Formats: sequence, C-alpha cells, structure tokens
Amino acid sequence: MQVLVVGTIALDTVETPFGKKEGILGGSAVHASISSSFFSNTSIVGPVGEDFPAEHLDFLKTRNINLSGLENIKGKTFRWSGYYEFDMNQAHTRDTQLNVLLEFNPVLDANLKKTPFVFLANLDPEIQLKILNQLECPKLTAVDTMDFWIKSKRDVLHEVIKKVDFVLMNEGEIRMFMETPNIPLAARRLIKLGAKAVIVKQGEHGALLFTDDYHFSAPSYPQEIFRDPTGAGDSFAGGFIGYLAKTGDLSEGNIRRSVIIGSVMASFNIEDFSLDRMRRLKVHEIIERFDEFKKFSDF
Amino acid sequence: MQVLVVGTIALDTVETPFGKKEGILGGSAVHASISSSFFSNTSIVGPVGEDFPAEHLDFLKTRNINLSGLENIKGKTFRWSGYYEFDMNQAHTRDTQLNVLLEFNPVLDANLKKTPFVFLANLDPEIQLKILNQLECPKLTAVDTMDFWIKSKRDVLHEVIKKVDFVLMNEGEIRMFMETPNIPLAARRLIKLGAKAVIVKQGEHGALLFTDDYHFSAPSYPQEIFRDPTGAGDSFAGGFIGYLAKTGDLSEGNIRRSVIIGSVMASFNIEDFSLDRMRRLKVHEIIERFDEFKKFSDF
Repeated sequence: MQVLVVGTIALDTVETPFGKKEGILGGSAVHASISSSFFSNTSIVGPVGEDFPAEHLDFLKTRNINLSGLENIKGKTFRWSGYYEFDMNQAHTRDTQLNVLLEFNPVLDANLKKTPFVFLANLDPEIQLKILNQLECPKLTAVDTMDFWIKSKRDVLHEVIKKVDFVLMNEGEIRMFMETPNIPLAARRLIKLGAKAVIVKQGEHGALLFTDDYHFSAPSYPQEIFRDPTGAGDSFAGGFIGYLAKTGDLSEGNIRRSVIIGSVMASFNIEDFSLDRMRRLKVHEIIERFDEFKKFSDF
Repeated sequence: MQVLVVGTIALDTVETPFGKKEGILGGSAVHASISSSFFSNTSIVGPVGEDFPAEHLDFLKTRNINLSGLENIKGKTFRWSGYYEFDMNQAHTRDTQLNVLLEFNPVLDANLKKTPFVFLANLDPEIQLKILNQLECPKLTAVDTMDFWIKSKRDVLHEVIKKVDFVLMNEGEIRMFMETPNIPLAARRLIKLGAKAVIVKQGEHGALLFTDDYHFSAPSYPQEIFRDPTGAGDSFAGGFIGYLAKTGDLSEGNIRRSVIIGSVMASFNIEDFSLDRMRRLKVHEIIERFDEFKKFSDF
C-alpha cells in the first residue's frame, strides 16, 4: 500500500568527528521517504525553494518517490546547520534558516488524501493537524515531534496525539512532555491522552514500543560504523511505516517486526553523511541485517 | 557449584526522589552475594567494622551465605553517602568513609581458594589481582571496576583483565578506559587486551555482551517501580554468575540466559531501597520476570 510522508526538505551543514559537509541533502521528509521507499510506493509532501538542486529531485525519482506533493515556493530552501560532539548523542544547532518553511501550508491533492499509511514527520503541530483533517481513509497514521513544539504548542500537540495511531518520540521528548523520567510511566500517560501506541526512540539503545496491550523492547544494533546521526529517527519512522504498508498487516507480531525494520534502516542511515548510505543500500543488506538483529537478541 | 564474591560491605546513606534512608545495608559484595544466593551456594569475602549490626549478618545467613571469609576489622564499617537526581541515572557521592576498607587485604582460606565461580566486585585492582593469584581451580572469573581505578591504576587493571574471563563495566567506564565513545569498538579493544568477554551494563537500557565469536543484546526492562538504583550492577553480576554456577553450563546459549537472569535480578533490586526487595523476593517471581523478558523482546 501507499505511504505519504510530510515534513521538511532541507539543505544541511553537518559536522561530526568524521568530517564536515556543507549544503547536503537532508530534512525529515527526505530521510523518512527514502527509507520508506525500500518497501512501499511513497509520496513526499514538503516545501523546497528555488535554490534546491535538481540532482536531489533526481535522486528521489530514482527511488520512485512521488513528487506531486512537493511545493515549490519562491525563496530559499530550509537550511539547518549543526554539529555533534565526540559521543554523537546530541545534535547541537549552529543555525536554522526556516526560509520557505515559513510559508508551508500543504493542501493535499485528491490522490494524496486517499493515502492509507501516513507519517507526519517533525513539523508545527498545527500543520500536522491540518493534514490529519485532510485524510480521507487513513489506515495507519504516525507522528513525530520535537522539544520545541512540546514547549511552545503543547495543547495543539495534544489534539494531534488524539487523532493518530503511533506517536514517535525520543526519550528526552517523552520525559519532558509527560513530566516524568520514568519511560514506561510516560508512555502509559501518553496512551491515556489518546495515542494508540507509543514508540520511544533510544538512539544507540534501540527502541521501545508501548500499547495498552503489550510492550516490545527492540535491541540496539552494535554500530561500529557511525559517521552522522542526522536523520536516524526519520529513517526509523520511514522503515517502520514503509514495511507496515508493504505487508498491510497490523498484527502485533508484524508491528514488532516493523520496529526492527525501522531500527535496521536507522542503523544504515547513520553509517554515512546525508543519504549517502541509502544511495548504496541493497535490499539483501536489509534482510541480512534484520537476521542479525534476530541472532544477537535471541536467548 | 559454589560462588565466591569479593567486595565491599557497607552502611549506606541514600537519597532518591522516593526518600532518604540512613545507615542501610549496602556494599558491592552484599548486593552481588544476595543476588547469587538465589541460585548457588555463595561465600562472601569483605571487611566489616565493629559497628556492623548483627541483624545484617543474620540476613546474610538466612540466604545461606557462607560468612567464613568475612573479615572483622577493628574500627568502623565502610560508609558511603550519596544521592540520585530525578532521572536516577547517576549516583552523586556526598561522602565516602573508607574506614576498615583501608586495611582490607584478604587471604582466602583453603576452602574458598577452591571456589570455581568467582566475582570480584569493584575494589582496588591490586587487591583483585591478589585474589586472582590465590585461586586454585577457577572455572569462571568475572570482575567489575569503576572510573576511579581506571584513572588511578590503569596498568594494574590491565593485569587483572588479562587474567579474568568476564569484564563488567558500565558505558561510561568502558568508553573512558578504551578511549572511544563507540561501545562495540571499545569492547573489541578490551577483548584484545586479554578479556575473554565483556559485559556492558547500560542501566535502564539493558546490557550488551561481546566475545570474539558473538554479540548479545539484552533488552531493558520496562521498569515502572524504581526507587533506588544502588547495587543494580552488583545484583546483575550476582545473578549472572550465580545462574552460571547453578547450571555449570558455559555454552553461548546459557551465557545469554545468564545475562537475562542478571538483568532480572537488577530489575528487582532497584524496586526498593537497600536489599529490601531481595528480602521479599520469591523464586517464582524470578521465573515469571524471565518469561516476561522473553515475551517483550520476541519478534
């Protein structure tokens, strides 16, 4: 089945202990849609400026990503510049230029409105809510957010959470939002707010899934090649929803497998800067790494 | 088979967001031997002062712990005072009174020298080395340490590591010791130094096991009841080695199961202050939680 990804399309400047790259392809919607495209036909909705290089669009096309929802806006593409220190756990922002993102207010076309699997990457929750209200027959919706929106638009975020199936947050975000350091307790509170399920992204420590009925703890991958964490969470989300859409199976067992597929895709994404590892990624590598996850977590 | 645990016996003053307790039973050897005692006959070696309450010795006796290696030293028992902040990830020391620990230089009796399974809890690596040199027929040895010894006695610690089978460290310690933030890389370096296997304790994020041949990622437990993290690592180690000794099976499969048993015991220990949860713990609860671990990590 089809996947719709809504989020940012960016030109990033990223510095890690392994190098510095300027003006490279990035953005939450790009990372998520590329990851999803390995499993399902994927449409991307996001704004680009006049300076957005055609080669990046060509790359999205090679992954069969539908660009009908791409919004060409007069002005410059959204830009983020940041760095990671030695342990690479935390992104430090040097500069954010919202540019065309300020005018982004997507109206889905008749085709996109009917997409069954929808991932709303990190964006202003007011825009996320507007998109949710445009969907005609969603089978599964997932949403990501960040500390900035938790602090500044808590109430709108509540509205978004009531309407979606899966809420994705990292540990710091869910602790902040639910005002407790205890992750299982925070997840339970978030489900009480109306989310059907919560996925807590733990970076190098794996991921946790909570629903009313069960808990799943996905192992971390023993990552020796690790050059740039940017986009890990979005690659996770793209793999997760892409695999669910491919199988169309929303059973507990398949949701668990989809969390592992998300972890697999994130583990590849961080092996190189930007989307560079994803450009080289082969399907057999995904299968092999999934099997590795099974092997090293078995007892 | 028998287990020998060498480490500290302490009177702790601990403050967490859930309360403050003064002069409670603690110490690495106490936490580890109590945990091990659920699986195997366990002997404790450590120093106590004249002020050590008889009721604590009675408690160790109710768990059938052999106290022949307990050293009664003139003076006061080792005392540690510390607190944990809201997220309880990091112990902050307020005060350390080494007292009788300064004179602790254990000589094992003929019986203890023959113990096949030995856990050297966090102690001066020079003492750890002396104990290793007294062992006559060790089947499996494991050692823990801390940042203080990594900084102050790196060379002696190297010698210890060359002689033991399992090295247990937390993430911060192994990163510091092997001078890389990359845990799998750090583990590989530690194995090159001579350790047969490395267990990286990740607190709320589970545990990782590395050997030359395989990697195992143990899931974290969704801990909602969490009152005092003190002794979690030692409870893990005690459960790990106690279960290995009980089964006498050093196959890969059983070592993986022992890591889970260690995680189970740590998850109980932190549910209450001091050893209070362990006083109430029943064997059927251990089995049930092990099954829970299997269930929530299956995919």
